[in-house]
Amino acid sequence: MSTHRASEAAAAIARDIRDGNRRVLAQACTLAESTLPADQEVVAHLSQLLPSPTLHNRRIAISGPPGVGKSTVIEAWGKQLLGRGNRVAVLAIDPSSKRSGGSILGDKTRMQHLANDSRAFVRPQPAGNHLGGAAVSTRLCIQLCEAAGFDTIIVETVGVGQSETEVSEMVDMFVLLALPAAGDDLQGIKRGIMEVADVVFVTKSDLDISSATRAAAVFSGVSRLLQPSSEGWRTRVIVGNAIEASGTNALTNIVDEFFSPERNDYYAERRRAQSMDWFDRQLNEEIRRAILDDKPIAQRVAHFRESVFAGTHSVPLAVHQAMVDVLEEIHGK
Amino acid sequence: MSTHRASEAAAAIARDIRDGNRRVLAQACTLAESTLPADQEVVAHLSQLLPSPTLHNRRIAISGPPGVGKSTVIEAWGKQLLGRGNRVAVLAIDPSSKRSGGSILGDKTRMQHLANDSRAFVRPQPAGNHLGGAAVSTRLCIQLCEAAGFDTIIVETVGVGQSETEVSEMVDMFVLLALPAAGDDLQGIKRGIMEVADVVFVTKSDLDISSATRAAAVFSGVSRLLQPSSEGWRTRVIVGNAIEASGTNALTNIVDEFFSPERNDYYAERRRAQSMDWFDRQLNEEIRRAILDDKPIAQRVAHFRESVFAGTHSVPLAVHQAMVDVLEEIHGK
Repeated sequence: MSTHRASEAAAAIARDIRDGNRRVLAQACTLAESTLPADQEVVAHLSQLLPSPTLHNRRIAISGPPGVGKSTVIEAWGKQLLGRGNRVAVLAIDPSSKRSGGSILGDKTRMQHLANDSRAFVRPQPAGNHLGGAAVSTRLCIQLCEAAGFDTIIVETVGVGQSETEVSEMVDMFVLLALPAAGDDLQGIKRGIMEVADVVFVTKSDLDISSATRAAAVFSGVSRLLQPSSEGWRTRVIVGNAIEASGTNALTNIVDEFFSPERNDYYAERRRAQSMDWFDRQLNEEIRRAILDDKPIAQRVAHFRESVFAGTHSVPLAVHQAMVDVLEEIHGK
Repeated sequence: MSTHRASEAAAAIARDIRDGNRRVLAQACTLAESTLPADQEVVAHLSQLLPSPTLHNRRIAISGPPGVGKSTVIEAWGKQLLGRGNRVAVLAIDPSSKRSGGSILGDKTRMQHLANDSRAFVRPQPAGNHLGGAAVSTRLCIQLCEAAGFDTIIVETVGVGQSETEVSEMVDMFVLLALPAAGDDLQGIKRGIMEVADVVFVTKSDLDISSATRAAAVFSGVSRLLQPSSEGWRTRVIVGNAIEASGTNALTNIVDEFFSPERNDYYAERRRAQSMDWFDRQLNEEIRRAILDDKPIAQRVAHFRESVFAGTHSVPLAVHQAMVDVLEEIHGK
């Protein structure tokens, strides 16, 4: 596809998305997952046509272990946000899928109210199989949803693997859901996750309110010991029960406070830093891929990698010899 | 330099180091910092000639904020280790220096006993000015010290910036030194650092024993809430005062327990994982450098990076156009 045709295709997609065509929005998110060069070129031009996020755009991650009730909280909270005039998009990152595009997760069933409301948009996101894979397509899908008029983007992540760190770098605010549990049973909070949490929501308070309250106190204590998750912000802890929509009002108030106009400079700067970081990392990843996806090079590199694993090569020697081959291949072309 | 000559030079260095020539050991650590291709080739061959670490090799990071008393603890503890027959090397990473080779830090003064003892070796390490810079030369220097017969390698790091995460990936065990402080004053524990700490040593207990004890209780509480820093290990908290050598006995016992023979499989696996990771990251870094250090490419990339900063290009478009230029430059050669 010529650059001209790619840019024309992108313009048509951007127009349809702005006009509220949800089918095109979903297709564009799928296109953003493509690794085909022609698709990526369209996506590059498309991203250029999307509006920059304003202060009215809120990007919020909701994370937590399986069983904590993420869908229930998102459904209840999302409903409340729609009720006060927000338009809500939910991007649910599915760590088990390398590539989605449909209803693998059954999100339409999990979040029935949101999925059937025309003011909301629910979409599963593939987790990607390489560094930055999920990040790139999800970042684009966030922007596409914003272009379609959704002001509140909720990125749901299961909080296993590296995903929540990646996700925290593409949102403005990070909400951690946690199960109520008595003191010592809290152990095993995933590394790094408390450090990015702007809000901790202890769910299922109906099961055992004293455990939930105790868990909340422990989370408050830990968060006070860590550096602020976001500049000028103190991590808040909520106790609630999403089935009865308890705690979601508190969440709305905290989110409004987080996005208060006095904190404008903070987002502007954070989003700019995220963009610079995204540029550096994606460029590095594409360079790496351009070199290492070449079959003969990949085979040579795999050979040296195995020799490190087997202990027959030291790392510096293996890297040195791999680089000799890499440079030969590059310059031999 | 031909590969043959590089490998001969490496063999001579390896022989001198094994024979206990400390001057050559220091020179080889400096050589490991060189970015000259000829030096790097010698280093690659040299690394291949070094023995793999055994169970008797202990690689321990000691980290903590400025003023916590790192040198005092290392001096007191190192003296004790020498007394029981260990041979101790201290590599002090200096975040302020891009390149060292001498006594910029004044380590010889800071750790006089160790610096003047023939059973010890003290060396400042440059922090490096790019990702992995310090890691590579320090990893090599660790191996060089082991080849010279030092069984306990202490990597001192100041615990600012990203250095402690990098350092935790090149050692077996991580000791965090902390100041005594009453409850809320503890706030601001550096992100990520509690999560890699196998031991927390609250220093300067002579100043205020009740604050120190209270700080220790808080650290114990926090560590119980996090995932284990190392598999099958529970983070220990010590209170001590290194000037009177208090706490250092406890440290020795904990370190011995950490390195107990029952935990052999753990190190073997951890070290192998560290090697694989080192290979992947260093290869990526060298590929990135081979491409981006090229002047015309660097200029084009800088141009697109600025356009992201200025907001005139979206990230995907900037990356896409930068890659067009990068691929043209590579294939045009």
